Amino acid sequence: MSDADNWYDEVFEGRIRLGLKVSQMLHTERSEFQQIDVFDSEAMGRTLALDGVLQTSEVDERFYHEMLVHPALCTAPSIRRVLVIGGGDGGTAREVLRHREVEYCRMVEIDRRVVELSRQYLPTIGTAWDDPRLDLVFGDGVAHVTSEDVEPYDVVILDGSDPVGPSLGLFGRDFYAGVARVLAPNGVFALQSESPFLMERTFTAIQAALPEFFPRSAPYLGWVPLYGTGMWSWTLAGPTLDHQNLHESRIEAIADGCRVYSAEIHRACFALPPLVRAMLP
Amino acid sequence: MSDADNWYDEVFEGRIRLGLKVSQMLHTERSEFQQIDVFDSEAMGRTLALDGVLQTSEVDERFYHEMLVHPALCTAPSIRRVLVIGGGDGGTAREVLRHREVEYCRMVEIDRRVVELSRQYLPTIGTAWDDPRLDLVFGDGVAHVTSEDVEPYDVVILDGSDPVGPSLGLFGRDFYAGVARVLAPNGVFALQSESPFLMERTFTAIQAALPEFFPRSAPYLGWVPLYGTGMWSWTLAGPTLDHQNLHESRIEAIADGCRVYSAEIHRACFALPPLVRAMLP
Repeated sequence: MSDADNWYDEVFEGRIRLGLKVSQMLHTERSEFQQIDVFDSEAMGRTLALDGVLQTSEVDERFYHEMLVHPALCTAPSIRRVLVIGGGDGGTAREVLRHREVEYCRMVEIDRRVVELSRQYLPTIGTAWDDPRLDLVFGDGVAHVTSEDVEPYDVVILDGSDPVGPSLGLFGRDFYAGVARVLAPNGVFALQSESPFLMERTFTAIQAALPEFFPRSAPYLGWVPLYGTGMWSWTLAGPTLDHQNLHESRIEAIADGCRVYSAEIHRACFALPPLVRAMLP
Repeated sequence: MSDADNWYDEVFEGRIRLGLKVSQMLHTERSEFQQIDVFDSEAMGRTLALDGVLQTSEVDERFYHEMLVHPALCTAPSIRRVLVIGGGDGGTAREVLRHREVEYCRMVEIDRRVVELSRQYLPTIGTAWDDPRLDLVFGDGVAHVTSEDVEPYDVVILDGSDPVGPSLGLFGRDFYAGVARVLAPNGVFALQSESPFLMERTFTAIQAALPEFFPRSAPYLGWVPLYGTGMWSWTLAGPTLDHQNLHESRIEAIADGCRVYSAEIHRACFALPPLVRAMLP
């Protein structure tokens, strides 16, 4: 992906690419699961890519992690027990654990090497590795929710990459059924749901599938500068989801550390342009 | 900008690039003012670039044009007389003229070749060239507002490219003073104000300069997939700006043709992430 002139390009379906000028390639390896690249880039700082797809960077990671975590954690009736699936860079667990009401956060990441390399190279993103409330497990998130014996979770957060490679199973009906199985009766499921612009088919498929397992769901939009065309979506789902029922005290408690999320952004981000609304079932 | 493998890359400050796979290069010329390229791309359809900067495409142009035009035209007290500066592809004039209350729309574009090539190659974008209310003039937008003898405009819309080449003067204090001069007492000025993420300095400079000429101003955000990292801003300004005072009947009249703008999006788009709010004066 890195050419002679030191551009690292994420190429999407052979038709559009986002390239970062690499100032230094720091690490590249083929793990058991995927190709892992870490490099310094002039535009985005320290950057992680998996299988050639840009995942996170020091400069823009707040756009993704805050918007994945806080809409769920600021509206769920209870947030004592949280499950994070994926999220190997540590940014999602960090945002979850900023909520003092969270007593236990289990994180199930399939690729131990992503965590090890993120701890080594991306220390500003994963700052909560040593939080005693974090229970980090290396394993298969699909198996965890579909077949393991677990206490119900108040919130389940899916922080996976695109539906290729090790993340493919995270976009299927079996997985959603598993999440429904481990979710508390009033629990909330938050997931990244891809770009409605660039990955319209995946976004549409997710929105069509969720209602089979969760009576209520609501997609919302934001920006992730690192992700191609910048328009990104996440979705909340749950049996009793009330996505505008904000717990103001939780928002106030995290506000100082937020660069992207706020009560104002929460109220606004569920507004969908007509062309996105038309993709909903 | 187009390499041997047929990628057309917009390179920003040598550190980040967005590339489109070109299926066919249709036209390339150096006009009196700038380099003009028109090509077909797999991701964005027919696409226009000026001086190597991607300007508009068939596939994503609604994100830009609807969000530039309708927040102003759905809130301004009067919209009888509208001035468009730039906008050579015709998309902005098209959206303006969808409002039946508009009686006269003057468009001042500096580069006649951009209009001629847009008429030839981008007929789906400029669909209002023959509207009798359109008064298309080729000339200098800065001179028009700073020194020509004009009847006041109810709305002035700046649809220029980045602050390089022929658009540089559209980002200066002289230009803003000129807009204030030609704006009606309750008029509204709408401008594209660049990406707060990628062009933070330009965005911040615009927000700092506008209050010197317009007592009220309000930036808002959206997505333009063609513009690098996707997060884009526009700004409304005016002596008596009331940016949430929606004229519902105007929105209803244009709603059927809108793919991005709606009353819901209008109410949401002025919400700013804390990191953007921190850039305001």
